[in-house]
Amino acid sequence: MNPTITAFENSPDEGEGMARDMPVRWAFEEVGQSYDVRLVSFAGMKQPAHVALHPFGQIPTYEAGGLTLFESGAIVLHIAGLRPGLLPADAGARARAISWMFAALSTVEPPIVDREVAWFTERDKSWYDERAAAIEERIRSRLGDLSRRLGDAEWLDGDFSAGDLLMISVLRRIEDVPLLGEYPNLAAYVARGKARPAFRRAFEAQYAVFLAAKG
Amino acid sequence: MNPTITAFENSPDEGEGMARDMPVRWAFEEVGQSYDVRLVSFAGMKQPAHVALHPFGQIPTYEAGGLTLFESGAIVLHIAGLRPGLLPADAGARARAISWMFAALSTVEPPIVDREVAWFTERDKSWYDERAAAIEERIRSRLGDLSRRLGDAEWLDGDFSAGDLLMISVLRRIEDVPLLGEYPNLAAYVARGKARPAFRRAFEAQYAVFLAAKG
Repeated sequence: MNPTITAFENSPDEGEGMARDMPVRWAFEEVGQSYDVRLVSFAGMKQPAHVALHPFGQIPTYEAGGLTLFESGAIVLHIAGLRPGLLPADAGARARAISWMFAALSTVEPPIVDREVAWFTERDKSWYDERAAAIEERIRSRLGDLSRRLGDAEWLDGDFSAGDLLMISVLRRIEDVPLLGEYPNLAAYVARGKARPAFRRAFEAQYAVFLAAKG
Repeated sequence: MNPTITAFENSPDEGEGMARDMPVRWAFEEVGQSYDVRLVSFAGMKQPAHVALHPFGQIPTYEAGGLTLFESGAIVLHIAGLRPGLLPADAGARARAISWMFAALSTVEPPIVDREVAWFTERDKSWYDERAAAIEERIRSRLGDLSRRLGDAEWLDGDFSAGDLLMISVLRRIEDVPLLGEYPNLAAYVARGKARPAFRRAFEAQYAVFLAAKG
């Protein structure tokens, strides 16, 4: 039996693959695990049946056998434990890859998401330009550190790992704004991630959902 | 040989145990693993020797044998894998506890840290009150969901786990403002965590560093 994940019935990202089912789909593709998807509406996500799976009423969730998980980072880590392809076999290298997973979600992502939140909730405010500039400086601070560490390496620590998968997923949120382009090695790193066949398959799968919703 | 972690030589939190070495110390205490601490200054954190350990120039780091890790979440997860006490033996229950670790750091913490960032960088701005109110509403949305899920349970999912350790560490950041008190079951949950002997030992250890720095 395939694991089942949830995804938006009608993602606000217009098929760009920015919703949090995307890294989970990508992880399944990297390890060669097929999966099923159950689509949920925005209203449905807040209903008791879904909140029983995801306490914060969001997507994605993961169900397999009697197990239910939430949080894309935790689901990617779980998938990486099911089959080889996303975490090194060596225990130390594995722990280092997991450091990068947490770094992606708790150090690099917050100012990047803050930029989106400010755009959605403050762009009509008189203070928006000043706020946006301050957020961009915080993002640059993270990107500068990341760029220095990556240098001219292909991936963050040896072979491609779940750490790269999550970091590239986070950086994609700023790929269409000038910010990422200020760090050419990071832009190239994101492009390498997106060129992976597993990424392409995952992207096409979520894009098909967008096309179907568009009708 | 004990693992060695890094911590602030002079923490800005005045001995409150809010720096990110605290959850790592707590994790060591929960599993009964002794550890050494190397103190670093704010200037030292940005020097090449430290950045080689932590790409973002922060604390804590973890060193043991030839292994170096960064990110408090990843370090807590690694410690939880060394000895029993922080993750269930059952694979499914373990994956669920890890969902709570990611939820603490990537879903609950961001608006709580945003509140602190706004206080430090925007409290003199004309718009601060409006911003602070918006952030508090985002925090309440998370706390409301978390409070409903916890209900009258002692911990988030069965026995105390690394998920509770990180969630309680995050909620401590708002324990002295009215916000947390609006959710009595969450306030009681934080109090239960702080009453654990392992928490007390970790707190005293970091407090001793503060007292020594004060001179």
